[in-house]
Amino acid sequence: MSTKVSTSEQVKQLLDAYDYFLFDCDGVLWLGDHILPKVAETLKSLKSHGKTVIFVTNNSTKSRKDYLKKFLKFGIEGINKTDIFGSSYATAIYINKILKLPLNEKIWILGEEGIKLELEELGYKTLGANDSKLNEDKEFNPDHEMLTELDPEVGCVVAGLCLNLNYLKLSITMQYLLTKNKSLPFIATNIDSTFPSKGKLLIGAGSIIETVSYASERKPDAICGKPNQSMMNSIKADYPELQANPKRGLMIGDRLNTDMKFGKLGGLDTLLVLTGIETEERVLSLTEEQPTYYMDKLGDIFELTRE
Amino acid sequence: MSTKVSTSEQVKQLLDAYDYFLFDCDGVLWLGDHILPKVAETLKSLKSHGKTVIFVTNNSTKSRKDYLKKFLKFGIEGINKTDIFGSSYATAIYINKILKLPLNEKIWILGEEGIKLELEELGYKTLGANDSKLNEDKEFNPDHEMLTELDPEVGCVVAGLCLNLNYLKLSITMQYLLTKNKSLPFIATNIDSTFPSKGKLLIGAGSIIETVSYASERKPDAICGKPNQSMMNSIKADYPELQANPKRGLMIGDRLNTDMKFGKLGGLDTLLVLTGIETEERVLSLTEEQPTYYMDKLGDIFELTRE
Repeated sequence: MSTKVSTSEQVKQLLDAYDYFLFDCDGVLWLGDHILPKVAETLKSLKSHGKTVIFVTNNSTKSRKDYLKKFLKFGIEGINKTDIFGSSYATAIYINKILKLPLNEKIWILGEEGIKLELEELGYKTLGANDSKLNEDKEFNPDHEMLTELDPEVGCVVAGLCLNLNYLKLSITMQYLLTKNKSLPFIATNIDSTFPSKGKLLIGAGSIIETVSYASERKPDAICGKPNQSMMNSIKADYPELQANPKRGLMIGDRLNTDMKFGKLGGLDTLLVLTGIETEERVLSLTEEQPTYYMDKLGDIFELTRE
Repeated sequence: MSTKVSTSEQVKQLLDAYDYFLFDCDGVLWLGDHILPKVAETLKSLKSHGKTVIFVTNNSTKSRKDYLKKFLKFGIEGINKTDIFGSSYATAIYINKILKLPLNEKIWILGEEGIKLELEELGYKTLGANDSKLNEDKEFNPDHEMLTELDPEVGCVVAGLCLNLNYLKLSITMQYLLTKNKSLPFIATNIDSTFPSKGKLLIGAGSIIETVSYASERKPDAICGKPNQSMMNSIKADYPELQANPKRGLMIGDRLNTDMKFGKLGGLDTLLVLTGIETEERVLSLTEEQPTYYMDKLGDIFELTRE
């Protein structure tokens, strides 16, 4: 049975029980461009108690540097690039460390600049992403040179959330997925079907990936975001104490099928906040896979401590 | 075992055996903007033998009027609007005759002008489709009024091939699919995963529909194009002799899973041409669901008759 955290005593127990606080971002810290109440204060309070805060996001449109800017914009200080684990970073690490793609092979990106920046930081050349050549025609042009002439040096296809989506980008992605007898690795940043923005659900990376997956009759060879454990392994590599004792870590998120699953698979306890996708009704109706705790909003940690 | 048609004697037998020749268009008559060899001559020859020619296409981007223009552009004369059964027309008929959607309810369209024109011809008001307001922002605008203010008069959602696809259109479509407790009828023009264009496979309607389907956790309530039999039933209603004796009809197409299946389900014999999606190797490897016949290209009917 999931415990609702709603008293100062319970918050005190949380602070005693955990040293590592892992946070999903969208739906937990902020909704799009709006920070949620008392988030900055809560993070500051945790740090003042000597806690390690780590940010784990499936949003691949931004690089870690972009995230740092976002934290500062919201007045959240003292966060370092190494505190942030995004699916774009996880994807770049996967391609480099696990796939071991040679640096002279290029990567086609269906997605945004975040993936491109993280891959470039590792020394890769990329194609696609936010290249303005892919958005210059008003109507779909079947003779576009990037569609008619595939680059033979492309050795990998990455797909993620793409807000500048168009038919040309989808079609080129499919060509690369079909080329070389369907042998190019097909890597998904994450497969969230939707994401919350301003009280609405918008189309998530997973739904966009479905299009090229269905058309090419291929499933992604790897999924780098939550709940996949490659990000968790990167985090534990950086924090040996968490590796040795995952029960000192608490994964805080707004999604059962990504955040809570990610924490649980990693051996951490989990805390669901109700500011994003899920509702209290849904949590209480779960017969299995319940989070360890749930609470109305993250900012309650600060508000309840002050009482 | 599928019979390859490659002699003038075989073509003569076809002409004796069938009165109704049903044709898929893309991949059979033309590839995009290029007519295939001897197609005009073949159609003329069939008509001169007193055969009825009928065109059955899953391409929903065009209305029947648009198709007439395309036939004329290719020098194919003597075709009437009533000879053409497109998935956009089939969708409009389905919504009107089967769903019986009242004319005062609007229809949201993820797709092109073809669907809009056919629906308007029946008296419906539509939203979406090729509305230029949906393409005017250079970047995705989460505050776009068509996303933030759904029209309460929308009573049905139609999705089909959308070459002017963007993230805004997908997101609005998802809002309508989720609204009113997911109760709005969700109609697909067709679910072809790809379509052939200039020697390449491009993203088909079915792959685009997968995006909004995955995001909204809804499957289309109806699929109007081939192989669905609603188009076949419309055709048979117009040709009672075909209704009475479907074996006098031959369905000619380039796809096993749509065209050949459509013909077979309707009780017609089938002829696969190899100018589109399928290969001879694939046909010969089929253990079941083989077409009655196959041939290299439709124009062989004309060329072989002349020998």
